[in-house]
Amino acid sequence: MGYPVVVHTVRHKQKLIARVRRVRGQIEAVERALEGAQSCEAVVRTIAAARGAINALAAEVLCDHLEDHLGAPRIPTKDRTAATTELAQVIRQFVR
Amino acid sequence: MGYPVVVHTVRHKQKLIARVRRVRGQIEAVERALEGAQSCEAVVRTIAAARGAINALAAEVLCDHLEDHLGAPRIPTKDRTAATTELAQVIRQFVR
Amino acid sequence: MGYPVVVHTVRHKQKLIARVRRVRGQIEAVERALEGAQSCEAVVRTIAAARGAINALAAEVLCDHLEDHLGAPRIPTKDRTAATTELAQVIRQFVR
Amino acid sequence: MGYPVVVHTVRHKQKLIARVRRVRGQIEAVERALEGAQSCEAVVRTIAAARGAINALAAEVLCDHLEDHLGAPRIPTKDRTAATTELAQVIRQFVR
Repeated sequence: MGYPVVVHTVRHKQKLIARVRRVRGQIEAVERALEGAQSCEAVVRTIAAARGAINALAAEVLCDHLEDHLGAPRIPTKDRTAATTELAQVIRQFVR
Repeated sequence: MGYPVVVHTVRHKQKLIARVRRVRGQIEAVERALEGAQSCEAVVRTIAAARGAINALAAEVLCDHLEDHLGAPRIPTKDRTAATTELAQVIRQFVR
Repeated sequence: MGYPVVVHTVRHKQKLIARVRRVRGQIEAVERALEGAQSCEAVVRTIAAARGAINALAAEVLCDHLEDHLGAPRIPTKDRTAATTELAQVIRQFVR
Repeated sequence: MGYPVVVHTVRHKQKLIARVRRVRGQIEAVERALEGAQSCEAVVRTIAAARGAINALAAEVLCDHLEDHLGAPRIPTKDRTAATTELAQVIRQFVR
């Protein structure tokens, strides 16, 4: 009966890969701003946008993990305990 | 049978309150550094320490919520779904 | 002729101390939210507000240093070089 | 007599472009981690590394601006005032 969970995860993965590619596009925009000798203010604006996109990507990875491994129905207690421990560790590492 | 969960939560709460009081102590250290006309470098160092402490406090609040409402045994599916939705929303708001 | 610079600095200092006291008020709001057993979402919202205020305080400390020690007229070259080095070091420490 | 300043700026620019390309490499590592279906913890670790690198890039852009436009000798007062205002604005936008 694992089928719905796997579909969920694949959909999440495609969404995350699309998102990381947009982040790469934003990093390329930073490079163009530096190459084009734009103002300090313009360059830092592109960097701030890329940073926001990276943080949002991290939030999505955490939330997908949460939904797939803790929010979904019929997860065995043992797996749920392991997922809780892993997610807590990842939150403590990233949020600082 | 909610007894173990409540005890867990109270213990978490006491720990979080002790932690937020330490953050207040670090903010008071920033104030003393400003009052004492310390160097820019020394003042910003106290601010960076306070920022690290407040981020760590946020991580603990998120992880306690995770452990109490998603990791604990015998949580009804409805409550687990609600806790997942709330935590995902909070992660998206904070991690950016 | 150092008089205007000193006045500038004192005005900046009063503004920064008023700002750090508001941050302390925001930390106390986090403590009240924890004591009052508010929702995870409400608690984390107060923490996010305090974090924003701490970062804004750091930005003001950096900008005051910049204006007082680099932007002001008639700063001797030696002092300007030292202020540049100190500010660069502080930016590298804080922005990460 | 602008020659040394221009050389300085070009050297800074090459260094920044090399750095932004390393950040792009780190984003590509995030993409590979997602494609390879690595653990949540491993994926978030690559994201945290990319975030650190983009913050460090911002710090370098700010410090280069500081050194080129405020720390260098013989900068006319008018230009120094303009550079101070721009840098203060950029710091307030980025540090939050």
